Amino acid sequence: MNRILVLEQIKRALNPPRVIRALEEGFVAYSEGRVNVPPVGQLNFEDPPGDCHIKYGCVPGDEYFVVKVATGFYRNPDLGLPSSNGLVLVFSQKTGQPEAILLDEGWLTDARTAAAGAIAAKYLARKKPVQIGIVGTGTQARMQLEWLPHVIDCRDVMVWGRSKTRAEQYRKDMTAAGFVVRVAADIAQLCAECDLVVSATAARRPIIPEALIRPGMHITAVGADGGGKRELEAGVFKRADICVVDSLSQCSAYGDASWALREGAISEVRLIELGRVIGNPELGRRHDGQITVADLTGVAVQDIQIARLVLENL
Amino acid sequence: MNRILVLEQIKRALNPPRVIRALEEGFVAYSEGRVNVPPVGQLNFEDPPGDCHIKYGCVPGDEYFVVKVATGFYRNPDLGLPSSNGLVLVFSQKTGQPEAILLDEGWLTDARTAAAGAIAAKYLARKKPVQIGIVGTGTQARMQLEWLPHVIDCRDVMVWGRSKTRAEQYRKDMTAAGFVVRVAADIAQLCAECDLVVSATAARRPIIPEALIRPGMHITAVGADGGGKRELEAGVFKRADICVVDSLSQCSAYGDASWALREGAISEVRLIELGRVIGNPELGRRHDGQITVADLTGVAVQDIQIARLVLENL
Repeated sequence: MNRILVLEQIKRALNPPRVIRALEEGFVAYSEGRVNVPPVGQLNFEDPPGDCHIKYGCVPGDEYFVVKVATGFYRNPDLGLPSSNGLVLVFSQKTGQPEAILLDEGWLTDARTAAAGAIAAKYLARKKPVQIGIVGTGTQARMQLEWLPHVIDCRDVMVWGRSKTRAEQYRKDMTAAGFVVRVAADIAQLCAECDLVVSATAARRPIIPEALIRPGMHITAVGADGGGKRELEAGVFKRADICVVDSLSQCSAYGDASWALREGAISEVRLIELGRVIGNPELGRRHDGQITVADLTGVAVQDIQIARLVLENL
Repeated sequence: MNRILVLEQIKRALNPPRVIRALEEGFVAYSEGRVNVPPVGQLNFEDPPGDCHIKYGCVPGDEYFVVKVATGFYRNPDLGLPSSNGLVLVFSQKTGQPEAILLDEGWLTDARTAAAGAIAAKYLARKKPVQIGIVGTGTQARMQLEWLPHVIDCRDVMVWGRSKTRAEQYRKDMTAAGFVVRVAADIAQLCAECDLVVSATAARRPIIPEALIRPGMHITAVGADGGGKRELEAGVFKRADICVVDSLSQCSAYGDASWALREGAISEVRLIELGRVIGNPELGRRHDGQITVADLTGVAVQDIQIARLVLENL
């Protein structure tokens, strides 16, 4: 019979440094073409607005293959429900039998997205950032910050979000989690004072304009995981010395990089996959003055790797 | 929390006449463009050979949407495991929350495939078939026969399979289930004596040749559910007065009809979707002398409808 695991069991089975290592290996394998990742399945809903992504694939020869279903319904908080949900199915690559159902309520997606943000910071941000800037105040904005200490020492944080109240709540919660957090007056202050900026919103229009980009900055954008969403002006990519994407195929179809391509701010040859940078770190940041950007849309290999870790650690 | 249902609960929740009715409604809605069915997700494995299909979609405005994962690993019987497996996930269309996990072990796929076979027979076979011919001796070959009495009265059956032993076992089991079953000497005898033929094999080369097709026959082929598989010679479609497919888009990409199209035996305008025939029965068989063929590749709307019935009947 299947093993059915609930969220607490799943959380207990994972430790962040191992997740980061497994995801690094996964990104490298993906960029080397060693992972079978078909195009993302997608269903969109209009009333109420929502979406469902199906990410699936395998490393051929591994023990398992993975199918992840994630939903986002952005009016759920009005009903007292989380906006994200989902689950992960693990099957045997030898028999096709279901091996486990991970009822993670979308947490594994949040965790592997946060881990990818940490990996981007590890290879692309300054070794010693002055201050972390977080754009957004939701679950992913929290998890991005929580995972950064696994790769950098900085604990000084500035947050900005559209709602002052939620920014203040973020400040309180993240202060309790061990960070020194201030609320930025606006995005301009955040960009002026922070050199490691992470954007984690559901924005559909750019939040971070080209004009606020300064030498030395690294920007990770994780919000634009589907058509219509974007967080960065196209010029941010033009300004950047290094433009990293988690997946060339996904980020040319959607994600912030796709807008920059369509608007002619950059050409596709400027984009480097994160897995190539991990496998070859000199493709990452080489000095403190460079500007770097990472567009992370979320690749099935992350789901494969984190689900495999859960099963291995049981 | 999610409702997690196991096979026995799922079987108890369904009754075949209601399944047939719900699938008929689903096919009609699908052919009228009222169902959102994205392309089937697919993973293929080489060693051991196997595949995984992800079928998903929704009727916009319904309560649920459905994601079905089905696997087929054809060497599993050597390990004492069934070759097919899978499960069905049901989510709310209003919130994206998982509503139920149906641990059906692939049975719902078998059942909705058998129900579609019965529907094809209802609209396309002679009103009073002389004898049913079953090609194949596996699970689906059994279920196709088991579902036919819901639409026709005939109980006289001839079976043919590559393995004499398994054909004999089929005869015994189906005799115990209330049919009068003989084992055919070869496919020629089966086609000569039967006018309602159902092919349910994993064949990759045609089993039923054009030369054996006679006036009055109806042939349903359900085995070719993915690339590389086929059961019917292209000429079977050329001989047929009425060529029905469950999905024009799927059956032009794979399935028996796709081979007939590629080999130039028929043009696409000859194909009619099953949902159109159900909605407009004069498109089906009009007299006993006609030759009819149905190529069923399995459409997500079947999974949506049968999963919805399970939840409604709990």
